[in-house]
Amino acid sequence: MANTTLSSGTTYHSRVLIRCSSSERGGQQRSNAAVRVNGAAHRATLQVGAALETSINETLAELSAPLLAPATDGRERSRQNIPTEKQAEDPFRQAQIVEGGVRYQQTVVVRSYEVGPDRTATLETILNLLQETALNHVWMSGLLGDGFGATHGMIKSNLIWVVSRMHVQVDHYPLWGDVLEIDTWVGSSGKNGMRRDWLIRGRGSGNIYVRATSTWVMMNKNTRRLSKMPEEVRGEISPWFIDRHAIHEEATEKIIKLDSNAKHVDSDLKTIPDQFLQHHQLSSIILEYRKECGSSDVVQSICQPDEDSVSPSENVSMVRGPSLLPEVINGHHSLAGALQQWPTKYTHLLQLKAGDVHEEIVRGRTTWKKKL
Amino acid sequence: MANTTLSSGTTYHSRVLIRCSSSERGGQQRSNAAVRVNGAAHRATLQVGAALETSINETLAELSAPLLAPATDGRERSRQNIPTEKQAEDPFRQAQIVEGGVRYQQTVVVRSYEVGPDRTATLETILNLLQETALNHVWMSGLLGDGFGATHGMIKSNLIWVVSRMHVQVDHYPLWGDVLEIDTWVGSSGKNGMRRDWLIRGRGSGNIYVRATSTWVMMNKNTRRLSKMPEEVRGEISPWFIDRHAIHEEATEKIIKLDSNAKHVDSDLKTIPDQFLQHHQLSSIILEYRKECGSSDVVQSICQPDEDSVSPSENVSMVRGPSLLPEVINGHHSLAGALQQWPTKYTHLLQLKAGDVHEEIVRGRTTWKKKL
Repeated sequence: MANTTLSSGTTYHSRVLIRCSSSERGGQQRSNAAVRVNGAAHRATLQVGAALETSINETLAELSAPLLAPATDGRERSRQNIPTEKQAEDPFRQAQIVEGGVRYQQTVVVRSYEVGPDRTATLETILNLLQETALNHVWMSGLLGDGFGATHGMIKSNLIWVVSRMHVQVDHYPLWGDVLEIDTWVGSSGKNGMRRDWLIRGRGSGNIYVRATSTWVMMNKNTRRLSKMPEEVRGEISPWFIDRHAIHEEATEKIIKLDSNAKHVDSDLKTIPDQFLQHHQLSSIILEYRKECGSSDVVQSICQPDEDSVSPSENVSMVRGPSLLPEVINGHHSLAGALQQWPTKYTHLLQLKAGDVHEEIVRGRTTWKKKL
Repeated sequence: MANTTLSSGTTYHSRVLIRCSSSERGGQQRSNAAVRVNGAAHRATLQVGAALETSINETLAELSAPLLAPATDGRERSRQNIPTEKQAEDPFRQAQIVEGGVRYQQTVVVRSYEVGPDRTATLETILNLLQETALNHVWMSGLLGDGFGATHGMIKSNLIWVVSRMHVQVDHYPLWGDVLEIDTWVGSSGKNGMRRDWLIRGRGSGNIYVRATSTWVMMNKNTRRLSKMPEEVRGEISPWFIDRHAIHEEATEKIIKLDSNAKHVDSDLKTIPDQFLQHHQLSSIILEYRKECGSSDVVQSICQPDEDSVSPSENVSMVRGPSLLPEVINGHHSLAGALQQWPTKYTHLLQLKAGDVHEEIVRGRTTWKKKL
């Protein structure tokens, strides 16, 4: 998708996860707001979501430069085949509402162009499917106001959804050709937030590939301030809430703020070495969104490895060599890269590069494991 | 998808359209070959395919830097849910073989992340779907040897498919949520080639959105030379051939070779102005592949507008202004961009930038029309 030059006076959507109206508020004007989410007042954690790529470098790059789409173009064509009434089944999407109406389930097949070099679905593909099923769930609930998940009540109050936190845990990357069953549901999150969880399973095996949870809050699309959840909106969405968690998070780990003393500070957003990426895959990513950014903002990616996070098992295999497969030895893979001991946990920060104060856009925390 | 650092001694696939083994032949070694295709001997038209982006700039950029995937990794996991026997139906892909076995048909819904700013499917999405349905067709035919469309007979002879020409004509871009029916079939193309055509239609309306045709030849994956079609392979695939054309091309227009005297010569591959892209959409693209290139090659994109290709109707509306919608006037769109008279036909060349002789990779020809 081409990057779009934004003209002022138009509302724009981000293409992934949440909606954004960055140019509607006149370019650079930004506001912070405090609102009670998850029971605690905290600073605005706004963000425009975007496709997350396989590597965290690209993940953060994409988050900083979302691809925006005009939403209120006067000549917008009407969408087709989108249910406006609550319905239980969508045969073309192979989707259904199950469990008394609270859970959405869709079957998808991993396609040839959705996989990476190792023929497994990329993280971008996984996140795309999370977005797709979330939106389809809202459609089938008959709540759809604008195509981006806002309900009728939200549209009346000029409110849009923004995601404040996202945690994706990949147990196994699905293969090209795998038939997946994706389940998603929502629940309450504090007084003004909503939780959305997902489970991606193999249709035949039932094996869990991916678990994900996210926290959503409402923002006024004109003032760009977070908003309390209006009673009307609570009335619309709370009948769908269930208390079930795809990821059992104990205490939510706080992500520390990095500064320019971090080990990797790069403005070209390449902070994880290629050699590491060849032999490792991301197993968990947590993102905390703190500020919106727009398509022309200049951003910087900062990364700090947990130097003590080299896994013991990896140390043993590296030193003693019992896991060195013949393929590794005979040159199919870089021996040096495989032997090197890499940290498996990283902290990330994406920040604006404008002016003296580099404002935070998103903090991240990633965990990696060696490829099988 | 991250760009992969290639280590020698491994076979790699491009992720889109055709297969590539650039590193298997030892890095930089390249060969030209002559083979009879479409009844005429011509120089090798080899290429590694890749995702085509919405703008021709990105199209050519992507073609030059395909994302490559390891294919013969000794530890490759077996794929699931892929038919190895000929079958008539694939319920999870919503696909079937129809018309006595020669036509493959699949139903897909345009997803939220497959559309651009105007909520219509991007050219990349369209090309991805062409690839996907082509591969699924081969699978359901029970001919699949390697997952990239090579038949059992081809694998025996170390042959892979390469695309030598691609012509995609977009009559209308499908909308987010549209239910599409994609048909694809194959036919003969000269003595050693194969044609593959596609039609993308609206499922409800039957309206045609996209027509596409392509020409494929065989290449020896070790020597990188084009190959005649072995009798065994002809025996495998010719029962599927039908003589039907999705695009009725009269004489195939020859694409002239550009040189550095062309109007736009850019090594950053941005040759079509953003202002033009805001108001126009690609309606036809023809690509003639002439040479392989690899993931680390440095390439240059050259573009020459047909200066006399400003459409008469566009001239009239520009001068007299009857088509200036209120949205255009009141600043939703750039008035200057809308008023400017742009050529609607362009010739393109992507070439290698190594050494004194800049070898051609792909010639292109694009036609654009004003957005509605």
